[in-house]
Amino acid sequence: MAHINLPDLPGIRGPMAFSPATAKPLNELAEVLLRDDNNTLSRGERELIGAYVSSLNDCFFCQNVHGALAGHYLEFDINAIDAVKKDYPSTNISDKLKALLSIAASVHKSGKNVTAAQIEKAKNEGATDKEIHDTVLIAAAFCMYNRYVDGLATWAPQDRQYYVDRAPVRAAEGYIDFDLYKNL
Amino acid sequence: MAHINLPDLPGIRGPMAFSPATAKPLNELAEVLLRDDNNTLSRGERELIGAYVSSLNDCFFCQNVHGALAGHYLEFDINAIDAVKKDYPSTNISDKLKALLSIAASVHKSGKNVTAAQIEKAKNEGATDKEIHDTVLIAAAFCMYNRYVDGLATWAPQDRQYYVDRAPVRAAEGYIDFDLYKNL
Repeated sequence: MAHINLPDLPGIRGPMAFSPATAKPLNELAEVLLRDDNNTLSRGERELIGAYVSSLNDCFFCQNVHGALAGHYLEFDINAIDAVKKDYPSTNISDKLKALLSIAASVHKSGKNVTAAQIEKAKNEGATDKEIHDTVLIAAAFCMYNRYVDGLATWAPQDRQYYVDRAPVRAAEGYIDFDLYKNL
Repeated sequence: MAHINLPDLPGIRGPMAFSPATAKPLNELAEVLLRDDNNTLSRGERELIGAYVSSLNDCFFCQNVHGALAGHYLEFDINAIDAVKKDYPSTNISDKLKALLSIAASVHKSGKNVTAAQIEKAKNEGATDKEIHDTVLIAAAFCMYNRYVDGLATWAPQDRQYYVDRAPVRAAEGYIDFDLYKNL
C-alpha cells in the first residue's frame, strides 16, 4: 500500500495523478531528455541509460518501463536488456555507450564520483559535450524519478511482459499527458 | 574546471545556459515545488528541506543557495541554518518539520528507505498527504539537482555571504528565467 492516498495507478502514474502541477515539468523533462530528436544519442541509448540507473537504484517500475522502451527502440529482447543492466562491459553495445554508462553509474552514487578519467575515456570514444551533459542529467533525473516512485511506496505490475507490451504505445505517444494538466 | 565546456556561470547556471531546453522544465519544477503559494508548507520550510538534502549530498552550491533562501524566508541566520543541517532534532523547528526532514533524509539514500513508521510519525505531527508527497519529491528533486551540479564539476563561489546577499533577489524573482528559453 502506498504511504499516502494516491489514485490507483501503477508506479509514477499514481503520484503524477495526485499532483498534476508537478507532473507537468517532470514529464516535460523526460520528453526533452529522452525523446527530443535534436540529439546524437538515439532514443534507445537514452532509455537504456535510464533503465540502467533505475536498476542500480533497484526501482522495479522504472527499470522495466524504460528497459522495455530501450528494447523497443534498439530491437533488444528482455534478456539483452537484462544483460546490459547486469554486466554492460561484456555486451556488444558500442564503446562510447559503455563509457557513458560508466559515467551514469558514478552519478547514481554521487555527482562527485564522476572522474576526469571517465570523462576523458568517453571523449576518446567520440562522446560530445552534449552527450556527456545529457548522460549526467539523465542519470541524475532517474535518481529523482526512482526515489519519487519508491519513496511513496507505489505499486507496480509484477509481470514484466506488461511493460514490454506497453512500450510501443508509450514510444509513439511520448511522455506529455495533456489530459493530466488540463485543469491547471 | 568543469568536465565539459560550459558557459562561465556558477553552479547549476552553467549547465542550464548550456542546455536551455532542459533548464526550462528543471526551473518549472523548482518553481512549483518551492514557490507555489498553493501549499501549506511555507516557502522557507520547503527551501530548508532542499538545503538539508543538498547538505547530505555534500553539494556546496545547492546547500548554500537554498540554505540562504530558507534563512531569508524563515528569518534564520546562517548559523541557525547550519544547525538544522548538522543536527535538526536539537533545533527548535516544529515537530512536523522534523518528521518531514527525517523522511527527506531517507529519500536521500533511497526511496525504499522511507519507512511506514516515519510516515506515521509525520501524520501524527499533522502532516497532510500533500505535505508528505511534496517532501518526498523535493528530496528526490534535490538528489537530481545536486548530481547535475557536481556530476559536471561546476564551480561555485566559496564565500558563503555571496549566497546570503543574493537570496532576497532570488526569492523575489523566482526560478523561471524566460531570457534563457526565449530562443527555444
